[in-house]
Amino acid sequence: MIGAARICRILALLLLASPASAARNVILVIGDGMDDVQITIARNYLVGAEGRLVIDDMPVRSAAQVLTVDEVGRRVYVADSANTATSIATGVVTSRGRIATTAGSDEPIETILEQAEAAGLRTGLVTTASVTDATPAAFVAHMSVRTCEDPESIQGVKRYGIVLPHCRQYTRANGGPGSISEQIARSDVDVVLGGGSRHFDIAAEGESRSVREQAEDNGFTVIDKAAAMTGGHDSKLLGLFAASTMPVRWRGENGRSAEPATPSWLNQLHPFLGSVRLPEPMRCEPDPEFAGMPSLADMTRTALARLENERGFLLMVESASIDKQAHERKPCGSIGELAQLDEAVALALEFAEQREDTLVLVTADHGHAAQLVPETSLFAQYGAPVYSPGMLVRLLTDEGSIMGVNYATNSFPYEEHTGSQVPLLANETGEDLIPSLVTQPQIYEIMHSFLFDEPD
Amino acid sequence: MIGAARICRILALLLLASPASAARNVILVIGDGMDDVQITIARNYLVGAEGRLVIDDMPVRSAAQVLTVDEVGRRVYVADSANTATSIATGVVTSRGRIATTAGSDEPIETILEQAEAAGLRTGLVTTASVTDATPAAFVAHMSVRTCEDPESIQGVKRYGIVLPHCRQYTRANGGPGSISEQIARSDVDVVLGGGSRHFDIAAEGESRSVREQAEDNGFTVIDKAAAMTGGHDSKLLGLFAASTMPVRWRGENGRSAEPATPSWLNQLHPFLGSVRLPEPMRCEPDPEFAGMPSLADMTRTALARLENERGFLLMVESASIDKQAHERKPCGSIGELAQLDEAVALALEFAEQREDTLVLVTADHGHAAQLVPETSLFAQYGAPVYSPGMLVRLLTDEGSIMGVNYATNSFPYEEHTGSQVPLLANETGEDLIPSLVTQPQIYEIMHSFLFDEPD
Repeated sequence: MIGAARICRILALLLLASPASAARNVILVIGDGMDDVQITIARNYLVGAEGRLVIDDMPVRSAAQVLTVDEVGRRVYVADSANTATSIATGVVTSRGRIATTAGSDEPIETILEQAEAAGLRTGLVTTASVTDATPAAFVAHMSVRTCEDPESIQGVKRYGIVLPHCRQYTRANGGPGSISEQIARSDVDVVLGGGSRHFDIAAEGESRSVREQAEDNGFTVIDKAAAMTGGHDSKLLGLFAASTMPVRWRGENGRSAEPATPSWLNQLHPFLGSVRLPEPMRCEPDPEFAGMPSLADMTRTALARLENERGFLLMVESASIDKQAHERKPCGSIGELAQLDEAVALALEFAEQREDTLVLVTADHGHAAQLVPETSLFAQYGAPVYSPGMLVRLLTDEGSIMGVNYATNSFPYEEHTGSQVPLLANETGEDLIPSLVTQPQIYEIMHSFLFDEPD
Repeated sequence: MIGAARICRILALLLLASPASAARNVILVIGDGMDDVQITIARNYLVGAEGRLVIDDMPVRSAAQVLTVDEVGRRVYVADSANTATSIATGVVTSRGRIATTAGSDEPIETILEQAEAAGLRTGLVTTASVTDATPAAFVAHMSVRTCEDPESIQGVKRYGIVLPHCRQYTRANGGPGSISEQIARSDVDVVLGGGSRHFDIAAEGESRSVREQAEDNGFTVIDKAAAMTGGHDSKLLGLFAASTMPVRWRGENGRSAEPATPSWLNQLHPFLGSVRLPEPMRCEPDPEFAGMPSLADMTRTALARLENERGFLLMVESASIDKQAHERKPCGSIGELAQLDEAVALALEFAEQREDTLVLVTADHGHAAQLVPETSLFAQYGAPVYSPGMLVRLLTDEGSIMGVNYATNSFPYEEHTGSQVPLLANETGEDLIPSLVTQPQIYEIMHSFLFDEPD
């Protein structure tokens, strides 16, 4: 059945639509790991369970199926940020760890940002991670392994005493494009803002000059202070505000993260006996390391000011540490970071208001470990100590209640991602462009169609 | 900004809308515990990660904020099915365990089903749980504690040696309406189908006759076999197809549920040493106990046939064991149950097609424990054994891959619910009626407005 409302929308497009603007702008905001649970936890803490975040009032809601394969093309059900960013940036499903390259065959895949550049649009990448991290990288670079972020790590990084895979086939000596930081330095992206200076402050492959100097040679003004973002608009801008991931806004009291429950000796003998001591409730507090950092909204404002033009632009804005703090079992870090995303979205929506040429999309790349668990167990009445086998934070909210956040996907120092469809939201410009459920590669198609298709 | 599309939809409502049908029908389908994770797990297993369930193609997507308070009105962040069904059925936020009664003051709250009856609409309740269970009960009954399901349990149920709260103020001796099964027996609901015969096959309070006989006295035809559903339409119908919760369609191989990982002795000394044995992968298999049960679609078909009339109807359909099987760490049970929901939704959509008088809503009441975790850890390359501290199932899918489902909210025999906004989907009739994010009580308002407001 085609309802009256739908018929009329079609009529509207034919009869009432204002003349198409020459510009086409896409602002794509990615909350790394920002699944429905993370949003609910952040909402409860920031504005209360009945409150509304900025993203909550976006008029178009869809969800995205996250798709991943392994190197031989077999389905994988939990993604990482590299393959998901590749899905969104290129429309191609690939394997975990890959930056805009194909699974198995290791071929580069053209990205929406490269296509936008080729069409004469301006482009920008803003992130609270290193600008060489998986999400921004998948829009501008091509690499078999995400950790090959600079001329040293392209040879293989050592972590926990383990040497991670190298990408030597990507070195310039082997006819490749060089590491991710070198690819960014040689790119034509108009604005790149985030962390990751350590990947630029080392010698470029086979050169005495640093990657940062290489970027300057290629027309970038490279800055490392928030105050410098106000500078002239006549060059490309590369802002590197931290050595690696940018510090986050909030942390737990005295830096506390999730902690295990402490059962009594009797409870260790039998799960229905004895008692348990849970971690003390706490509030979030400002993370002193965040002092002096530009906010994600500050960076987004700078990017929008530099990108606006008659032809249009593509801007990707990533709130990276929803994910990174969840890996470390730090809900306050994730909440503060989601607040940063919400402020950046407010700016994007404000920019897009009063114009029909700007599509604002907000999505997540994959699910994450955090669960919102009962402060009082559903089974408390049985008297047995009931507690998580993982790590717990009990957050005191402004509503005067305690919110339990559980991390229990593994016992490794870092939690796992999880598999779940993720939210996809849009401003009114996205109405009729976005089905109620899409695959992640379809987000690429929606952006591509909006930027490049001739209006009917 | 009001976009051209929206202006035109308003015009359409004014100019193009077909004459309003006299009937107004609402089919509300509730997947108990059916959060985005449960949907993703079921989709992956049933149709593959890129496949589409019936619910995936519903054109309208929203999400619902789940709201709960305690007895003194303080915010609680994780709900149960009683307070959430009360939110949906009455528009009033209450405390866990309550069936259409107010937190603290213990007053009955009028439900949408009661309002529909009063307006001359037909009404129906279909569930795979006992018909006295929290979700259906909150539409037709009023009770301070959900476990007061029958004349015995209203005095307080004993479980695990613990006596649960009674509801003696609700007994008829004390001037109350009696237990939940007695309230259903005396109700005017036209169709009630599900499990729970044990709550009807005992003597009604202060009487020698059973609650079942009481229902028959009140005009119900009471049946207990699927084949009997085809019977005459000239009486109310109460179908009780199982003693308690109806058996589910699927189970794990040989009834297996989630199992703990078995670390080597070396790994027990240090988490980076040794190895781990994970549960063997398995497939889902038919649960033999399901034989002879009507499917949720069978029951929905029967209900629709009996409810359709010129005035309209309200039908609530619950797939209850997505939740109940997740509590028991049985993903196959949840998946088979979600398949049942999907089939019932297909029937509802088919009924609503070709007519604009039927609003189909699909939602969940709260989040649940299951997480979809990586089969190969994100940190596998470090060589350390990485595994859940909880219970794991590794499901072999038709795509030839393994899907890990983790249960780790507690160490009790039953997992916890979790806090998360939940999906809300609608057929095309729901376009323009449903904002992109609602509170759960707003679902009541949407149904109420659709059923009772005069069309503009």
